[in-house]
Amino acid sequence: MFPAAIAGLCCLSVSATEKVDLMITDALVLTMDQDKTVYQNGTVVIRDNKILAVGDQSLEKHYQAQTTLDVDGDIVMPGLINTHTHVSMTVFRSLADDVPDRLHRYIFPLEAKLVSRDMVRIGANLGNLEMVKGGVTTYADMYYFEDEVAKTVDKIGMRAVLGESVIKFPVADAANADEGIQYALNFINAYKDHPRITPAFAPHAPYTNTTETLQKIAKLSLEKEVPVMIHLAESHREEEAIAERADGQSPVEYMHSIGALNKNLIGAHMILIDDKDIELVKQSDMGVAHNMSANIKSAKGVSPALKMYDQGVRIGLGTDGPMSGNTLSIIDEFNQVAKVHKLMNQDRSAMPPIKVIDMATMGAAKALHMEDSIGSLEVGKLADIIVVDTKAPNMVPIYNPYSALVYSANSGNVRHTIVDGKILMKDRKMLTVDEDAIRNEAIEFTHIVRDTVIKSGEIIQ
Amino acid sequence: MFPAAIAGLCCLSVSATEKVDLMITDALVLTMDQDKTVYQNGTVVIRDNKILAVGDQSLEKHYQAQTTLDVDGDIVMPGLINTHTHVSMTVFRSLADDVPDRLHRYIFPLEAKLVSRDMVRIGANLGNLEMVKGGVTTYADMYYFEDEVAKTVDKIGMRAVLGESVIKFPVADAANADEGIQYALNFINAYKDHPRITPAFAPHAPYTNTTETLQKIAKLSLEKEVPVMIHLAESHREEEAIAERADGQSPVEYMHSIGALNKNLIGAHMILIDDKDIELVKQSDMGVAHNMSANIKSAKGVSPALKMYDQGVRIGLGTDGPMSGNTLSIIDEFNQVAKVHKLMNQDRSAMPPIKVIDMATMGAAKALHMEDSIGSLEVGKLADIIVVDTKAPNMVPIYNPYSALVYSANSGNVRHTIVDGKILMKDRKMLTVDEDAIRNEAIEFTHIVRDTVIKSGEIIQ
Ligand SMILES: [Zn+2]
Ligand SMILES: [Zn+2]
Repeated sequence: MFPAAIAGLCCLSVSATEKVDLMITDALVLTMDQDKTVYQNGTVVIRDNKILAVGDQSLEKHYQAQTTLDVDGDIVMPGLINTHTHVSMTVFRSLADDVPDRLHRYIFPLEAKLVSRDMVRIGANLGNLEMVKGGVTTYADMYYFEDEVAKTVDKIGMRAVLGESVIKFPVADAANADEGIQYALNFINAYKDHPRITPAFAPHAPYTNTTETLQKIAKLSLEKEVPVMIHLAESHREEEAIAERADGQSPVEYMHSIGALNKNLIGAHMILIDDKDIELVKQSDMGVAHNMSANIKSAKGVSPALKMYDQGVRIGLGTDGPMSGNTLSIIDEFNQVAKVHKLMNQDRSAMPPIKVIDMATMGAAKALHMEDSIGSLEVGKLADIIVVDTKAPNMVPIYNPYSALVYSANSGNVRHTIVDGKILMKDRKMLTVDEDAIRNEAIEFTHIVRDTVIKSGEIIQ
Repeated sequence: MFPAAIAGLCCLSVSATEKVDLMITDALVLTMDQDKTVYQNGTVVIRDNKILAVGDQSLEKHYQAQTTLDVDGDIVMPGLINTHTHVSMTVFRSLADDVPDRLHRYIFPLEAKLVSRDMVRIGANLGNLEMVKGGVTTYADMYYFEDEVAKTVDKIGMRAVLGESVIKFPVADAANADEGIQYALNFINAYKDHPRITPAFAPHAPYTNTTETLQKIAKLSLEKEVPVMIHLAESHREEEAIAERADGQSPVEYMHSIGALNKNLIGAHMILIDDKDIELVKQSDMGVAHNMSANIKSAKGVSPALKMYDQGVRIGLGTDGPMSGNTLSIIDEFNQVAKVHKLMNQDRSAMPPIKVIDMATMGAAKALHMEDSIGSLEVGKLADIIVVDTKAPNMVPIYNPYSALVYSANSGNVRHTIVDGKILMKDRKMLTVDEDAIRNEAIEFTHIVRDTVIKSGEIIQ
C-alpha cells in the first residue's frame, strides 16, 4: 500500500486533500483517449463509480483515498469490452467442435433439449467469471432467458448489454417470434433503468426471422431506445436465403431496404460484405462486432474489419459464444486479430497493436454506442478499469505496452478488474462471487449434458 | 496428497510395493502414444528420470512413491517441445515490432551492438522461465554464445538442442563463418555428453552462408552426429538470392543439391515450398519447425505444415524468437495454429485439436529426432511431463481434452512442469531458479537497450 492510505492519520495537510474512494498509483496508464495519452508513473482517482482524475504522480497529493492500489508499474487501462457472445453456452464448450454445418445439425437441436433457466444461469455465472478474470468489464450477449443472465451480471458487478433472442422457430422461452418479442419487451421494461445493464432485442439473424418480425423489432427499438443485436452477413447460407427472399440483395442491403439498418443496430460478424455494404453501414451509424477468432475456427473467413475501422465504422472485438470461440476473454484474441489481419493484407504493418487495443476498448464502446461512458480512462467516465501484470516472464520487458499486450499477454496476466468503481477481482481472487461454487455447479450440469446427448451417441466426442 | 504417500507408515503390504520417486495420481492422462491412449483417473509412475508405468488407477497400489502429486482430475500430458527459438532475444521483446525489412534494418544492427555473453545469459534465463511456466520442457535454440545458454538450461533443469550460429558476416562471438564453426565445434565437444543438452550447428540460413560453409557443416554434423538447424524457405529475399546463386533452384532444392539436406537437418519456417520440395524433405528424413504465429506476424505466409504432417514429415511447432513471435510458450500457439490452418484450407475440420497437440509433442520430438526418448508418456521414456489446470473458468467444462487445450487453454493454465523426473515448477512456483532475480536482471538490461538504441532515436518506439 502507498503511504496515501494512512495520510489521514499523519498529516496537517489533510484538510487540503479531497476524500475519494479508490486511487491507483504507480501505474503505466494507457488512457485510450483521443490522443492515446500514456502516463508513466500515472495515477487514476475514482469517486463513487466514476473517474475523478487521471494523470501523473503529482495527482496523488491532492486526494485521500479509502483504498489505494499501488500497482508497481503495471499497466492500467480501460476494461475490455466483448461486443458479442452467448455467455450461457459455456456449459457446452468443447462439445462437438469442428463438425460440418454445426449450428443446424448440433447446436439448435442441443439447445432445444437443454436450454432452461437453470442452464442459462449456470452458464452465465461461469462465463462472467471467465470474463472478469480475463479483464472483460462489459459484454454484449444474445441468448434466451436473458433475465437470468441479468441477475448474474447484477450479482458479479459487471456491465452488459443483454439481448433477448427472437427467432422464428420454437425455442425454450418462446413458441414463436411474437412470443420472443413479448419476452424481450417484458425484460426491457424490467431492466430499462438498471445502472449497469442495458436490455436489448436480439433477432437471431435475418434468415431466421421474417421481414415483418425484423421491422417490428426495428420500430420497437426506436420507441424504447434500446439496442438491437443480430448476426449479420455471416454465412453463404444466409446470403443465399436473403438473396432469394429479397431479389438478390446482400444481407446488409436487405436490412437497409426494410428500414432495420439504423443507429440502434449492432451487427455481429459482418464477414461477407463489400464496399457498397460498408457504405450503408457507415451511413446507418450502426455498430459492428468483429469476432475474428471464432470466424476462422469455422473457416467462414475474415471480415474486412480493418477497412471498416480505418473508415470510422463503430467496430469492436467480440469472442462469439464459447461453442464458437471458445474462450470469452478478449485479451486472448489480441494476438490472433493483429496477426491474421497482417496475413490477409500481406502487410506486417497492417493492424498494429494500438488499433487492436482501440478495437477492444473505445472501438467496442462505440460499437455499443456507449463511448460517452466507457472505453477510455477520462475524467467523468465510469470507472471500468483493469490492471495487467508486467512482471510475468511473458510480459518482460515492456518497451512498448501496446505490443506487450497484443503479442505477449494472456488472460492470466490480468491482476485486478474494476467495474463501476468496485473491485471485482483483486490479485486474481474474485471478491463478489464464489468461484468454486460456480465451477462446481457448471460441472454438475455437464453430467446432464453427457446423459442427454453424449451417451445417446447423438453427439460424438 | 494421496494416501500412498504415507503407505510406508501403515501397511503390511509394504514389502509388495515397489519404491519409486514420483507418482502422479487422479490424472486425465493424454499419453500421445501411437494409439492416443487416454486414461481417466490415470496414474503416471516415475523412477529416476524415466517413466516406469502409465495406466489407470489400479497402478497406484503397486508403488510407494517418495512424492505423490494428486492432480484432482487435471490434464497430464507430455511436456511441450518448442522446435525453434532464439531464447536470449527476450531482452529485445516488444522493440520495433512491425517495421518493414526488420531483420536487416533493425535486428542485425541491434545485435551487432548488444549481443554479449551477459545478454545471452540474461535473455536465456528469462526465456527459460517463460517456457517452464508455459509447459515447455524441451526447446531448440539458434543463437550466439550458446555455451551461455547451455549453462542456463543446465541450471533450470530443462532439455534443449542448442545450435551455435554460423553466419558469413562478423558477429559478437565470431569474425566470420569459419570462426563460427570453430566456436560451434568447441561447444559441441564440451556438451556432447550432457544428459539434457544436445549441442548443434546453426547456420543462420542458406543465403547468409556460402555453399562451402554449408557443406562443411553438413559433413561435420555427420561426423559428430549432431543436428544442424537452419532457417529455410522463409522469405522471397532468400528465394531470390538462392535462385541467383544456384541456377533457379528453390532453397530446398539447393540444400539437397549441395548435399546438406539430410537426417541431421532441422529446417525452420519452410513457408515457400512446393510439392517437389516436400518430396525432397520426406526423402531426406529431415525435421521441420513450424512457426506459424511468428510467420503471420511478419505477413510471410503460412507454411503447408498440415500437408507435410499428413504426409508423415517430421514436423513440430515452434515459436521463433521473442522478437518474432513474441511469446515462447507453445500452448499459446495452439489456438492460432488450429484456426489459421482452417482458414487457409477453407475447411473447419482441417487441423483438428489432436493434430495440433501431436505437433507440439510427438511431432516436435520427431522433428528433433528425439522421438525415442521424449514426446509421449510411455514406459521407458524420459519423464518430461506437464499438468494443466482443468478448474480455471476458461477450461470448464472438458468434454474433449484436446479441444479444451487447443481452443481454451493459455500458458497460465499450466500448473506443474516436470523435466527428467524433476519438478521444475509446482503450482506455478519455480523450484530450481529465483524468478524475481531473473526478472530484475532482465529489466536492468533493458536500461542498456534504451540507452543504446532507443534514446539515440535509432529505434523508434
Ligand atoms: Zn454469435
Ligand atoms: Zn528464427
